[in-house]
Amino acid sequence: MQTVEYYQEAFGTFLKTFVKRREPETLYDPVNYILNLGGKRLRPVLTLMTAELFNCDYTQALNAALSIEVFHNFSLVHDDIMDDAPLRRGKETVHEKWDINTGILSGDAMLILAYQLFENYDANTFQALAKLFSKTALEVCEGQQYDIDFETRDVVGIDEYLKMIEYKTAVLVGAAMQMGAIVSKASTDDQIAIYEFGKNLGIAFQLQDDYLDAFGNPETFGKQVGGDIIENKKTYLYIKALEFSNAHEALELQHLFSLNPTDTTDKVTTAKQIFASSGSADAIKKEVAHYTEKAFLVLDSLTSVDDHKKAALKQFGASLMNREV
Amino acid sequence: MQTVEYYQEAFGTFLKTFVKRREPETLYDPVNYILNLGGKRLRPVLTLMTAELFNCDYTQALNAALSIEVFHNFSLVHDDIMDDAPLRRGKETVHEKWDINTGILSGDAMLILAYQLFENYDANTFQALAKLFSKTALEVCEGQQYDIDFETRDVVGIDEYLKMIEYKTAVLVGAAMQMGAIVSKASTDDQIAIYEFGKNLGIAFQLQDDYLDAFGNPETFGKQVGGDIIENKKTYLYIKALEFSNAHEALELQHLFSLNPTDTTDKVTTAKQIFASSGSADAIKKEVAHYTEKAFLVLDSLTSVDDHKKAALKQFGASLMNREV
Repeated sequence: MQTVEYYQEAFGTFLKTFVKRREPETLYDPVNYILNLGGKRLRPVLTLMTAELFNCDYTQALNAALSIEVFHNFSLVHDDIMDDAPLRRGKETVHEKWDINTGILSGDAMLILAYQLFENYDANTFQALAKLFSKTALEVCEGQQYDIDFETRDVVGIDEYLKMIEYKTAVLVGAAMQMGAIVSKASTDDQIAIYEFGKNLGIAFQLQDDYLDAFGNPETFGKQVGGDIIENKKTYLYIKALEFSNAHEALELQHLFSLNPTDTTDKVTTAKQIFASSGSADAIKKEVAHYTEKAFLVLDSLTSVDDHKKAALKQFGASLMNREV
Repeated sequence: MQTVEYYQEAFGTFLKTFVKRREPETLYDPVNYILNLGGKRLRPVLTLMTAELFNCDYTQALNAALSIEVFHNFSLVHDDIMDDAPLRRGKETVHEKWDINTGILSGDAMLILAYQLFENYDANTFQALAKLFSKTALEVCEGQQYDIDFETRDVVGIDEYLKMIEYKTAVLVGAAMQMGAIVSKASTDDQIAIYEFGKNLGIAFQLQDDYLDAFGNPETFGKQVGGDIIENKKTYLYIKALEFSNAHEALELQHLFSLNPTDTTDKVTTAKQIFASSGSADAIKKEVAHYTEKAFLVLDSLTSVDDHKKAALKQFGASLMNREV
């Protein structure tokens, strides 16, 4: 097993070969653009690491890893339209740089291109990868729909919220890793276990993201600190703070999350105070630790995997949870 | 081989079993809505007929046929957003009845659902179907992009136009038929031949559609007669009329196709006169006959197929070209 940076670089080199020089350019230029905006490439790196975990050369998993990354970027292009987001990774989003129709159509092409990458495998592997991919992709759509639905709902339960982030974010991490296992022809039990590891890690990752969105260091956190508060998003922090509040405090918090002030400084400060004093900030940190621990326990149960490989994967997982960016 | 109506009904019954009662309803209700708006179901019927052409029971091809119909409806949902179309089959389009975001996301789900339907086949058939599907779906996206690009271009060549309708419309007819052949485990040669038959029939069908859009009987034609003229669309009729015109007439026609009058009656009448007098209306009728003939010649070359089955398929093809709706 190599370092994370090694797999990142190997994946980056492979991604460069994918550049689509096809007609019409108006369809494929946006595809190349979004794929080359950068990003940490966490999902494809996990695919490659999982292949090596199960004693398969990572190069065998490059096409599956690329499929995951192309799909992830497809979902970003379409989500950015739905969220009316002007920026992605500090650059213009596709529908801003071109237009909404281009974003829709180039996104559609990327979803198809993601499936096409499985054609590099034999029929049985192809079917296993495509089946997992379809199931996961549909769940990602469902997660996005729940996220949209929650915006206009007054009350969202914590279980509903956890299900939403599981679908919208975590299942793709699980699938990325299971694909590494499929390519390695790992047993079904091992495939299920590594999927569970990835899924729990993905939930922990998203909760950590929610935490950093409010309490991250503005100098190191990539996005605007307090963004979720400003947009009145019903994240784990908000839902738990409501749950921990008495009736009076709850009304105050609900009122705060109905405001859209021009100067957001006070609102962000007040919300953070409530998240801290209510115990919701502590609760999310415990939840991150809980899902990380759950992931590690599944990994420990994998008797077929070398201990030093497990340790490398755990180290990567731990670094994601201790990140400040 | 049964009648077209028989396969239409069998397909309609099968489609009813597909209704998605899944959460979240906000994602799946639009899927059920668009699939139940009706339509002639030509593509899936051709899949079923092709299966029987190659001596396979049509019931084996129902999932492939449904995949084609789900994909076709996916493309309608996304195209209707891009074209800002309020109506589809006389009913509200998905993005009108719900909103644009719903149209994007439900469309995405349909594209994935189309792939999932191939999971009902063994690994080799699955791979063959999914490969053909991805290639075709990408071409349909490319065709839609060419169509969009042509709107803002001054000059479109007849070859470019024919390529656009081949990609946007005809390849899916070819693929629908090849899928019937794949399920029937027909030879590669037979698969290629029936794809070519479908593709040429699809081009003829679309050209006939262009003709009817201008010269159809308002009482039987489903859409507004003259719609392409009103929208200044560079169809075969327009491109050929330009080609057949002298410099003065060409300028007049180009001027006419730059106008957007409130009362469109005169514009439609003038354009139709030019299409008729220039010879462009005759040319398109000849082109429809040419592509239909080309399709039939390919069918004749299929030595493995019974003559009475070929005759049934030809009769269906001819009826499509002589239609007034």
